[in-house]
Amino acid sequence: MSFERVAIIGLGLLGGSVGLAVQEHLPGVVTSGFDADPAVRRRAAERGLTAKVCESPQEAVAAADLVILCVPVGAMAEVAREIAPALSPGALVSDVGSTKQSIAAALGEALPNHAVIPAHPVAGTEHSGPDAGFASLFRHRWCILTPPADADPVQLDALAAFWRALGATVEIMDAAHHDLVLAVTSHIPHLIAYTIVGTASDLEDVTQGEVIKYSAGGFRDFTRIAASDPTMWRDVFLNNREAVLEMLGRFTEDLTALQRAIRSGDGEMLFDRFTKTRAIRRSIIEQGQDDARPDFGRKHDAD
Amino acid sequence: MSFERVAIIGLGLLGGSVGLAVQEHLPGVVTSGFDADPAVRRRAAERGLTAKVCESPQEAVAAADLVILCVPVGAMAEVAREIAPALSPGALVSDVGSTKQSIAAALGEALPNHAVIPAHPVAGTEHSGPDAGFASLFRHRWCILTPPADADPVQLDALAAFWRALGATVEIMDAAHHDLVLAVTSHIPHLIAYTIVGTASDLEDVTQGEVIKYSAGGFRDFTRIAASDPTMWRDVFLNNREAVLEMLGRFTEDLTALQRAIRSGDGEMLFDRFTKTRAIRRSIIEQGQDDARPDFGRKHDAD
Repeated sequence: MSFERVAIIGLGLLGGSVGLAVQEHLPGVVTSGFDADPAVRRRAAERGLTAKVCESPQEAVAAADLVILCVPVGAMAEVAREIAPALSPGALVSDVGSTKQSIAAALGEALPNHAVIPAHPVAGTEHSGPDAGFASLFRHRWCILTPPADADPVQLDALAAFWRALGATVEIMDAAHHDLVLAVTSHIPHLIAYTIVGTASDLEDVTQGEVIKYSAGGFRDFTRIAASDPTMWRDVFLNNREAVLEMLGRFTEDLTALQRAIRSGDGEMLFDRFTKTRAIRRSIIEQGQDDARPDFGRKHDAD
Repeated sequence: MSFERVAIIGLGLLGGSVGLAVQEHLPGVVTSGFDADPAVRRRAAERGLTAKVCESPQEAVAAADLVILCVPVGAMAEVAREIAPALSPGALVSDVGSTKQSIAAALGEALPNHAVIPAHPVAGTEHSGPDAGFASLFRHRWCILTPPADADPVQLDALAAFWRALGATVEIMDAAHHDLVLAVTSHIPHLIAYTIVGTASDLEDVTQGEVIKYSAGGFRDFTRIAASDPTMWRDVFLNNREAVLEMLGRFTEDLTALQRAIRSGDGEMLFDRFTKTRAIRRSIIEQGQDDARPDFGRKHDAD
């Protein structure tokens, strides 16, 4: 089994990238799309993010055998309710949301008569909107599927094959474990980045102009993810509250320990901590999850 | 006045880059270098980081009219004491250290009979050692000079012209203010990055393999600066303790406020905070301090 007609609801960075990747890697598959924002629909049609851009979510999903919801986590339930009456009986509904327990619950409740297998491609950039997507976004990235216990193995295989066709490596995981893992690798990093960028812009004794000028000292690395879509991230934190607060507690304990070492002048402890973190970056590069060139490959000779 | 013979003590990322940049942009200037590590000296000679690589710091500085100390902050005083007897009477001593008050004090004490103007080029990568340097490191970056009150204006102008020749834009600043500004734009970001990478590698319920796999969710951005030289960074925190602890206090307050908003489900507060941080990134890009391409310009189609 493989999907022949894929509908994408929400045509921002993720939805647009799925649409473009399907058209590039699965040219036989028919794509349709919808976005609640008329300006996004117009731009999506201009860029050809999906073969057809529809004027209603119902129209977009009507003939689809795979529907992928690419809207902020907090909007999933409402969109699912809207499309429910128009879905084909055999259609599989999936998504690309960054939290999985809350989405599984919301979609399960909104679509009691349809198959739902939530998914999370761990890929993105700091840009959002219909101009941000590109076909290679998922290449060499992981896509985590969190099927419910009663998921149809044939549909699960088909969904996994779909993501593999788009360039991703697929992993099956329990939704609760997904939410814990992503709290560490994605949600807490975003929260910390938003915080430090906010802190730096609110100081009285250091101007915002100075922060910008001297950002190459390390600060600018944080500003990338702190430029991500605010609606998306608000919803992530509201919908993965428990795991985020748990991981934030661990982070704060560790930061307090380093703070104490600085205050007491414990150079040995600092050196020890700063040494062991190098190995992780080496592994991330070896496993193709980051660029080995210095500064992520930033230009050093640009004018 | 301009410098004719530049000595570089310490031939790692910064020292090596200064040496290469001088040879590229100031071909008439004679360069000599020294590093305490014989293996580094060998590699520096192979790469030609300075025209001559000497076997002692005294030999390296003997004929120089500008000596630049490119060693970790904690090693500055000792190196200054070692070179003091060999320095030409008119030589200017400078450095590239990341903290300025402690270095000004250390160099002033070790070199009571010589002119000292501390400097800090706000540039670097996560790599260190004699293979890490490159000639364009300082291009479009800021170099902050923190001259003492009695600095010779002619020497100050010459040092500023030297850094401009290497591609940097020069700013004059009070050492105490420098330490506060850099605590925000560089030291705290490094401390936070080291912390979160450490936290993530110490969890029981999420494996290190999972952290590495799913690092593209945001975590990998932090691993770059957490791979920086541990000796250098230990010294920075021990030598800019007050400003770092002050800024860390602000950061922790702001993080606690966001934590409370997550716990209480205050979506409006989260959205508001996450919105205002985008403007800073835009300014950083506009001012040429970061790459405008998504993901810092990381490759998306690499094999």
